Amino acid sequence: MNSITKLVEEKPWVGWVLFFTTMIVVFVLGLFAASIVERRTEALYTYRPATDISEWEPDSSKWGKYFPREYESYLKTKDMNFRSKYAGNVPIDSLAEDPRLVVLWAGYGFARDYSAPRGHHYAVTDVRNTLRTGAPMTPAEGPQPATCWTCKSPDVPRLMSTMGPAKFYASKWAALGPEVTHAIGCADCHDPKTMSLRISRPALIEAFSRKGKDIGKATHQEMRSLVCAQCHVEYYFQPQTSYLVFPWDSGTTVDDIERYYDSLNFSDWTHALSKAPMLKAQHPDWEVFALGIHAQRGLSCADCHMPYQSEGGVKYTSHHIQSPLKDVSTTCQVCHRESKEELMRNVFERQDKNFAIRIEAEDALVKAHFAAKKAWESGASNDEMAPVLKLIRHAQWRLDFAIAGHGSSFHAPLEVARILSTAVAKAQEARIHLTRILAAHGFNSEIEVPDISTKEKAQQVIGLDMPKLHEDKKKFLETVVPKWDAEAASR
Amino acid sequence: MNSITKLVEEKPWVGWVLFFTTMIVVFVLGLFAASIVERRTEALYTYRPATDISEWEPDSSKWGKYFPREYESYLKTKDMNFRSKYAGNVPIDSLAEDPRLVVLWAGYGFARDYSAPRGHHYAVTDVRNTLRTGAPMTPAEGPQPATCWTCKSPDVPRLMSTMGPAKFYASKWAALGPEVTHAIGCADCHDPKTMSLRISRPALIEAFSRKGKDIGKATHQEMRSLVCAQCHVEYYFQPQTSYLVFPWDSGTTVDDIERYYDSLNFSDWTHALSKAPMLKAQHPDWEVFALGIHAQRGLSCADCHMPYQSEGGVKYTSHHIQSPLKDVSTTCQVCHRESKEELMRNVFERQDKNFAIRIEAEDALVKAHFAAKKAWESGASNDEMAPVLKLIRHAQWRLDFAIAGHGSSFHAPLEVARILSTAVAKAQEARIHLTRILAAHGFNSEIEVPDISTKEKAQQVIGLDMPKLHEDKKKFLETVVPKWDAEAASR
Repeated sequence: MNSITKLVEEKPWVGWVLFFTTMIVVFVLGLFAASIVERRTEALYTYRPATDISEWEPDSSKWGKYFPREYESYLKTKDMNFRSKYAGNVPIDSLAEDPRLVVLWAGYGFARDYSAPRGHHYAVTDVRNTLRTGAPMTPAEGPQPATCWTCKSPDVPRLMSTMGPAKFYASKWAALGPEVTHAIGCADCHDPKTMSLRISRPALIEAFSRKGKDIGKATHQEMRSLVCAQCHVEYYFQPQTSYLVFPWDSGTTVDDIERYYDSLNFSDWTHALSKAPMLKAQHPDWEVFALGIHAQRGLSCADCHMPYQSEGGVKYTSHHIQSPLKDVSTTCQVCHRESKEELMRNVFERQDKNFAIRIEAEDALVKAHFAAKKAWESGASNDEMAPVLKLIRHAQWRLDFAIAGHGSSFHAPLEVARILSTAVAKAQEARIHLTRILAAHGFNSEIEVPDISTKEKAQQVIGLDMPKLHEDKKKFLETVVPKWDAEAASR
Repeated sequence: MNSITKLVEEKPWVGWVLFFTTMIVVFVLGLFAASIVERRTEALYTYRPATDISEWEPDSSKWGKYFPREYESYLKTKDMNFRSKYAGNVPIDSLAEDPRLVVLWAGYGFARDYSAPRGHHYAVTDVRNTLRTGAPMTPAEGPQPATCWTCKSPDVPRLMSTMGPAKFYASKWAALGPEVTHAIGCADCHDPKTMSLRISRPALIEAFSRKGKDIGKATHQEMRSLVCAQCHVEYYFQPQTSYLVFPWDSGTTVDDIERYYDSLNFSDWTHALSKAPMLKAQHPDWEVFALGIHAQRGLSCADCHMPYQSEGGVKYTSHHIQSPLKDVSTTCQVCHRESKEELMRNVFERQDKNFAIRIEAEDALVKAHFAAKKAWESGASNDEMAPVLKLIRHAQWRLDFAIAGHGSSFHAPLEVARILSTAVAKAQEARIHLTRILAAHGFNSEIEVPDISTKEKAQQVIGLDMPKLHEDKKKFLETVVPKWDAEAASR
């Protein structure tokens, strides 16, 4: 050792080499340590400037002044160009893609018009345009209550803050047309003072409260899903009051909610062909997501649908809410090391497998509805039909729960397969009953399903007067809606 | 800078501090580098000593002298104590657990006796003990051909090397009893000279060759699955010759293999109740595994079922082939950072969901078989029954393919769900046809399924004389088997 001391004394450059080596190594270790610390800091990071935004400000551009990156990314929800199908941002007509749905929803608004969802930017436009909201020429006209606005606009919490929810829901949809003009935006999820996540809609708070849970105690990570769960859930309108309720009192699985609806004897409508008391599933995204592996591993909606972005050294949350497959590098690949192509193939494979089961279930249900119609015509009694109608109700509820959501076959592929397989089993069981009932009433052949190979043919089969519906809608859009917009602009 | 040189000159201990800091840091970096290099070395590592083991040595203890760690771990396949069910290493009676299976296999050996598999150690014992191999009192007696030995013992490649496969398969099972006495062991998968993985069974080589593929060109990682695929696959015995064939010529999915069997008009047996021409799926483990995410990510069977172990600084492959859930820390947790409990819960959840669909399919099939029996009794014609029998054949084939394997609901959960849901759909479709046929022949009520709530009741329902079968087996085990063992010992 002494010899090294001597060496350094004799040749000072050896000391320098030792010194600089140490410096370099320590510098690199410092980089690693900094990277670890930085990630912890990122997790705590929330930017909360003082703002002059009012409590229920529905105009997102006013929020955007303080949060230009978030706002600019939010504006991109205009772009729905996912896969070639969305070219031109035109809504995809789901009924044209799968005309069986027209038969399944016979007697209900969805048989008229049902499109794949577009970005939040289109929320108000699309609910005005859909045939499901009809053509109310006066504020007092139906067919829909104001409850249909609930998830479409930050004008809704603004209105509720003065009207109260009950009066809001009890209004007609057309009555609030001039008031609801801003598409889903900042105020729907954020507190303008602290910019914290905020639940703006009563239905979610009430559903938690009925279960004895205080949503105010949710963690930040839970809130990154719960603000979405204000709307992306299964819900129903209470009869008479049209009050919006989440049917979660027995739990949030498809079986739990079915039990809940059965216990209330609730149905959304009576099927035009089979006369079954039907349930329409909305989009139970949060409920299905909760049963999948990504939720089980602690992820929130925002982790994949609103990934972190970097711009000029600043990290922010993208508000261009969209399919994570649109930007695999900032979503899936944060955890998964596979190539974009491989990861997308994995997702599509899950969707394809469940799609096959879905079609089995739909085909069986279409046949069941027509067979039930034939059974009524052949003189079947209410007593004979009761078990059949229950099977049809449950089968279609399960099918709909599995397919009505956004991305369910990715969120919880096996749960969706399980649900769909019970739909197949129950629809087929209904057909077995119906075959026996029909034979008892003198009809023992296969039921002929009319030609429903296109949306138009299927709508004709169930007796819809589509030219009339379109004409009325056109008149409504050309005369009523401009008045709404003018009234809103004058405020 | 000069001041530091001076400082070192004046106070030599400062130089020493710099020196030792550098040493420590470089040492730690060295450890990291070594760990990286070691992992690369491990991947290449194969230990190949010179041995005096003969080409088809069936006695694994002779191999064990050179590979004590592998051999000792192999001996542990005796231990099947997985979950509480396996307490005492007693085989689990699957028919007692689910008596529906007795009805589904009516007319076939599996209705007599079907147990959950035990470790490789029990291969010869269990095939001697099962009622499916009957009680042949002479070498020429049936019911089974020698093909039933194919996967049970390293004596098989030894015998095939002298007899040739065709003559082996054409022998009676009892004729080769004295020759096949060693349980599955080293020679089944290893070359005694190089210790490389080796395919010892012709069926796999032939299946590859018919597809124009040379199995000799498989990579080492592929071989770590292919040696298992010699046995853990779907197979059938060719009629007349009993030649063992893998039905992969159209592909290896359940649909591909169904098409293959249909094109040959092949059936394993005619169902005792429905008279349907049935297919019995064996254990298509490799085929199902290939469709799951772990295979898609490049894993082999051995990665999880034969994990690496460390002992006294030596790394070796565990030959205690078992469920990876028995040792989560060396299997799942090599890649997954979740707790053992969490990972096991994930697996069980997948199994539970598919189990629910399985029971739907089984219940529907049981009813279909009894309804078909009733239809024949009511005077249904072959023409009327033909589409029904085809539906039953396909439904049960799919059910069986999904449930006959080991761990399929883990290996490819969604594929299994998809398969099971088609089984539900087809079984129910058969029942719809049958309802119509029965009505046409004057019977229009629900079919009563007899009491099959226990294995014993179900076996009585399908007309099995179990006391006789057990008595014959006992006699066979007490008189014939000891002679086989004596003859083997005298060699």
